[in-house]
Amino acid sequence: MSRLDQQMAFLTEADRLKTVLRATTLCDGSRMENSAEHSWHIALYALVLAEHSDEQLDTGKIVKMLLLHDIVEIDAGDAPVFGDHDTQAMAIREQAAADRLFGLLPDDQAQEFRAIWEEFEANATPEAQFAKSIDRMQPPMQNLASGGGSWIDYDVTYDRFAAQIGPKINQGAPKIWAWLQPKVAAFFAAKD
Amino acid sequence: MSRLDQQMAFLTEADRLKTVLRATTLCDGSRMENSAEHSWHIALYALVLAEHSDEQLDTGKIVKMLLLHDIVEIDAGDAPVFGDHDTQAMAIREQAAADRLFGLLPDDQAQEFRAIWEEFEANATPEAQFAKSIDRMQPPMQNLASGGGSWIDYDVTYDRFAAQIGPKINQGAPKIWAWLQPKVAAFFAAKD
Repeated sequence: MSRLDQQMAFLTEADRLKTVLRATTLCDGSRMENSAEHSWHIALYALVLAEHSDEQLDTGKIVKMLLLHDIVEIDAGDAPVFGDHDTQAMAIREQAAADRLFGLLPDDQAQEFRAIWEEFEANATPEAQFAKSIDRMQPPMQNLASGGGSWIDYDVTYDRFAAQIGPKINQGAPKIWAWLQPKVAAFFAAKD
Repeated sequence: MSRLDQQMAFLTEADRLKTVLRATTLCDGSRMENSAEHSWHIALYALVLAEHSDEQLDTGKIVKMLLLHDIVEIDAGDAPVFGDHDTQAMAIREQAAADRLFGLLPDDQAQEFRAIWEEFEANATPEAQFAKSIDRMQPPMQNLASGGGSWIDYDVTYDRFAAQIGPKINQGAPKIWAWLQPKVAAFFAAKD
């Protein structure tokens, strides 16, 4: 196989991310969101919002991370953040998925993409932390727009949201969390 | 409205791109592709394939172009490449859409994003030409995978494809066109 043959095989296989459904709906509530369009949306979030980070970030790297971050779901599936799942079993499935999917690419590119995905997962660099915060803040934005979405489906309270999701958004994007938190609090207060 | 208020209004409105359907299906033929997941897919194409350009390209700018290039379709709709449409009327609708949609952002960002979109549309820089080529080559890849797709729906012949699409892919990505062309020719030859 030529280098282009390998790259095109990867790009064709990547198409399957469009069939992986998430727990979140579109803003209009009309259907569940899939992981490919979600990846586009959060890459756009990163382009628009990178200026609100406290650190000088490599926006290109963040966008790359966000375009690649969910590809493992083609084999491993999406684990809804408020659902029950075995974190360790999921991590093993995702590693196997990364082996297979990035392994479709030429070796040097497979290693490059895998390293970016591992950096995102490790959540240790400023870019990974900002990318993770963006990935965590888009679902509440969808839920606010649609009137509750996955918060209702998973019977989530404000306290659970604030404890489980708040610190994750705040870690990489404190200014954005400061903007979002009162809106989510007001939504839950109006609901009760 | 604060800067973040404006940015979030734009990002929420952008969600509607997930409801704009294209003439192309997923690779498995199961449904039509939408413009948001298409935008993710071609941004990934650009990350993987930028090395095959004859010029030294700013990949970050290409990815930005591809993430933004279809946003005007939220108001203007998608014009299938093999369909009949009034090109001039479409251009007017797209300009009005760009005014409204990018106009949701803070002024400096609205101007920056509008300039990137205009650069893509003008197709004059190496980055725009590569981005356009990628945007033109992903649909034939989907059609090859699904067994014909929009070529069948629009009764397209190989000669029409080669005349209408070939030069557009070849302009920005001649090595990729050299790889793709014989595959498309073989598909049509086997079909007849």
